[in-house]
Amino acid sequence: MAKDKPTKLRARMPRGFADRGPGELVPTRAMLETIRKVYELYGFEALETPFIEYTDALGKFLPDQDRPNEGVFSFQDDDEQWLSLRYDLTAPLARHVAENFDKLPKPFRSYRAGWVFRNEKPGPGRFRQFMQFDADTVGAPTVAADAEICMMMADTLEALGLKGKYVIKVNNRKVLDGVLEAIGLGGDENAGRRLTVLRAIDKFDKVGISGVRDLLGAGRWENPEAKSGDFTKGAGLDEGQADIVLASLNPGAGQAAENEAYRAGRAELDEIGALVNAAGYGDRVKIDPSVVRGLEYYTGPVFEAELTFEVKDEKGRPVRFGSVGGGGRYDGLVGRFRGEAVPATGFSIGVSRLASALSYLKTDATPEFGPVVVVVMDRDQTAHYMGLVATLRQAGIRAEMYLGNPKNLGNQFKYADRRNSPCVVIQGSDERANGQVQIKDLIEGAKAAAAITDNAEWRETRPAQFACTEGELVDKVRELLDHHGVPHGAARG
Amino acid sequence: MAKDKPTKLRARMPRGFADRGPGELVPTRAMLETIRKVYELYGFEALETPFIEYTDALGKFLPDQDRPNEGVFSFQDDDEQWLSLRYDLTAPLARHVAENFDKLPKPFRSYRAGWVFRNEKPGPGRFRQFMQFDADTVGAPTVAADAEICMMMADTLEALGLKGKYVIKVNNRKVLDGVLEAIGLGGDENAGRRLTVLRAIDKFDKVGISGVRDLLGAGRWENPEAKSGDFTKGAGLDEGQADIVLASLNPGAGQAAENEAYRAGRAELDEIGALVNAAGYGDRVKIDPSVVRGLEYYTGPVFEAELTFEVKDEKGRPVRFGSVGGGGRYDGLVGRFRGEAVPATGFSIGVSRLASALSYLKTDATPEFGPVVVVVMDRDQTAHYMGLVATLRQAGIRAEMYLGNPKNLGNQFKYADRRNSPCVVIQGSDERANGQVQIKDLIEGAKAAAAITDNAEWRETRPAQFACTEGELVDKVRELLDHHGVPHGAARG
Repeated sequence: MAKDKPTKLRARMPRGFADRGPGELVPTRAMLETIRKVYELYGFEALETPFIEYTDALGKFLPDQDRPNEGVFSFQDDDEQWLSLRYDLTAPLARHVAENFDKLPKPFRSYRAGWVFRNEKPGPGRFRQFMQFDADTVGAPTVAADAEICMMMADTLEALGLKGKYVIKVNNRKVLDGVLEAIGLGGDENAGRRLTVLRAIDKFDKVGISGVRDLLGAGRWENPEAKSGDFTKGAGLDEGQADIVLASLNPGAGQAAENEAYRAGRAELDEIGALVNAAGYGDRVKIDPSVVRGLEYYTGPVFEAELTFEVKDEKGRPVRFGSVGGGGRYDGLVGRFRGEAVPATGFSIGVSRLASALSYLKTDATPEFGPVVVVVMDRDQTAHYMGLVATLRQAGIRAEMYLGNPKNLGNQFKYADRRNSPCVVIQGSDERANGQVQIKDLIEGAKAAAAITDNAEWRETRPAQFACTEGELVDKVRELLDHHGVPHGAARG
Repeated sequence: MAKDKPTKLRARMPRGFADRGPGELVPTRAMLETIRKVYELYGFEALETPFIEYTDALGKFLPDQDRPNEGVFSFQDDDEQWLSLRYDLTAPLARHVAENFDKLPKPFRSYRAGWVFRNEKPGPGRFRQFMQFDADTVGAPTVAADAEICMMMADTLEALGLKGKYVIKVNNRKVLDGVLEAIGLGGDENAGRRLTVLRAIDKFDKVGISGVRDLLGAGRWENPEAKSGDFTKGAGLDEGQADIVLASLNPGAGQAAENEAYRAGRAELDEIGALVNAAGYGDRVKIDPSVVRGLEYYTGPVFEAELTFEVKDEKGRPVRFGSVGGGGRYDGLVGRFRGEAVPATGFSIGVSRLASALSYLKTDATPEFGPVVVVVMDRDQTAHYMGLVATLRQAGIRAEMYLGNPKNLGNQFKYADRRNSPCVVIQGSDERANGQVQIKDLIEGAKAAAAITDNAEWRETRPAQFACTEGELVDKVRELLDHHGVPHGAARG
């Protein structure tokens, strides 16, 4: 211990944030690249907006309006104006389009990938910083744009190897608005009850028609048979009101809402259904009246991408993987800046959710190999060892000289093990005098170590170590990497 | 104008922030990919830290300590603790290493690319959000690590096509500290004067030895001969003190500083020089005693990557492009958390600066082409047009159906022009009846339009438009794209 130990800072992160290493970053990068290529094929163009916007430009459209002042990280600029970190990529897009309206081609199709921030209570798997990958078409008034964006999502998930494992569900906010209007829950004063009804509809997949009926009425027990577990208070609708809501979940059964919003919404859904069927996406893009989507700014069709394969929940029970993204039409968002509605629709992928889904399905557990490590036997030969490393790199082989304290050779080998290096290159004074190096094959060595149980035998056989000349170094290392299937830069002619 | 015009929000961004479109994002993405490949070849691994950290974990190491409470965007968390947006990628790395010290291989080599934030007064080309691309080696005590990182920077710039157009300059904070100590400017009370001296040294490239002498003494006129222009107040050193400073800029001339820090610093520089010479980088990695680097946390070698080609400054005078990144050794930064020094060194590339340098040098002005546009002649044929688009996309050709209001055909062509589409696909009822489409070659059309001056002639010849069957669509569009050299997805077998 140091004698004059200074006061130490604690190294810690704020809750709800995370560091990410290569195990997460490398597959995510590949995934983002695949998504990007599909979006570009559809004619969408790259766009990035800043992380910080004027608070009023972003607006407050997050779910959970019971906490109206939370959800967003905000702070004041030098001139006292309020700034916020973006909480999604849609509100900044609306600002961008409004600010550059006359310069942009219309329809304007863009994609944006980036981090967004929510100042919410963090929990397991619930972060305050997460990445979204959005695509939006602004200036396209018909549902053809909505249908297209749903088909693009289907193509995206197929490109990621999720064929047969997903469904894109489509509903319409107008249908929901029509239902709420029909049961007399319009108006600002009913905002709270509306939310309870929408949450009940949202639960349809999990609790079925009878469960939703309970949630629309008095409430529902977690275990309805035994009337045990948590009790969720219901919306308190009467039976007639509940029937109208349930008819929207099961069109044809019971008395549906009778109003303009409901009819217009259903007609749009029919049109989307016809377009996706004609394009051969009918088995993957499906109308589903239980889709709600929490964001306040949606005005028409809403979408949700759900992965249908099963994983275990926290209690070990099998559940569908669930949503990895969604979106919808938001004709009013650009209009806030322009005094006229501007039609717009978009889809947002939850990047971490989707990446975690892909990692569930990954079957090949090929380890990522680290660099070839050139160990340091003689400190005064640093320049020479660096030269060996440079030779390997110039041949496209990941390599490094050990840069820690070289005194303990064991530490150097331990380091190579921790980096999962395929091999180490060793040159002591004898080898150097002969222009030679030793190559120790760590992959072969690990296999041999697993097979050999006797320490003495191990020392005698010194498995998987061989000598070659400095001139042969690149070829021998390449052979070794090829032998073990470790990728490396292409051989030069 | 709408009758009930609601109060409109102004669509605007806070100062010092910017939107970025494909013209900037596409080349930047390619550049980042090239940098990443070089870093990986050197054995560095991907890492990402969050944008938000505890304020005390980041510390205050920004230049311009005359404004100690500025520079960083900060705000309080729900539990009253202060949070900040990261202002660089080094301070968060130090936190990460300290937090995971026992789990990490050491030396720990990582690279990180990401946005950082400075709450400073914005100006032309000076943003409050900008991107850095860093590589760091933590746990490597010798200058071999510093030398290696400088050589990696050289390789990076070469991989970006900057061969012969750059120099990596190396100095040592210990040399500067030794000089300041020798002239009696140690101690907290001299912080202000130290800064003035360092700024004078930093000006060496621009003003030469005599200019630095003026800045160390009474001060310097912008035009020294005429004693006109702006006057910069000097550090007020006497001649003996100035000589010691100047001797550090021109080793061998005059009386150098005589102390431990100075000697240790020069010895390290000699060692770095020997290593880079042995590796054949001596013409690109050069010891330069005028490099200062503003950040407070450097403790040893400091680096700067300078592009040497000339551009015009704001007054039209030729100047070197200048710095695109830098870094240095910061042995104390991880130690703030651990109560013991942890050796570390790193390099940070200013991504926007470097991207703008590359765009200066770009000679081929190939325009980026947009997607093939299928125009909408009959609205009730939407599903059929979508099918044509899908056929093109499945062949790897960027394509879209026009999704705006299709009434005005002229608007559809204008849209294709704005997107810089290579061609449009047209199908009216006659063509549909015959299973045909018209393809209009917009690239050829633009050339022809430039040659044809007569409107009637234009209408008669209808240049660059031809018919084909729906079955030939993909092949004909491919031919057209190949003819004009527009890249598209590979042909399928």
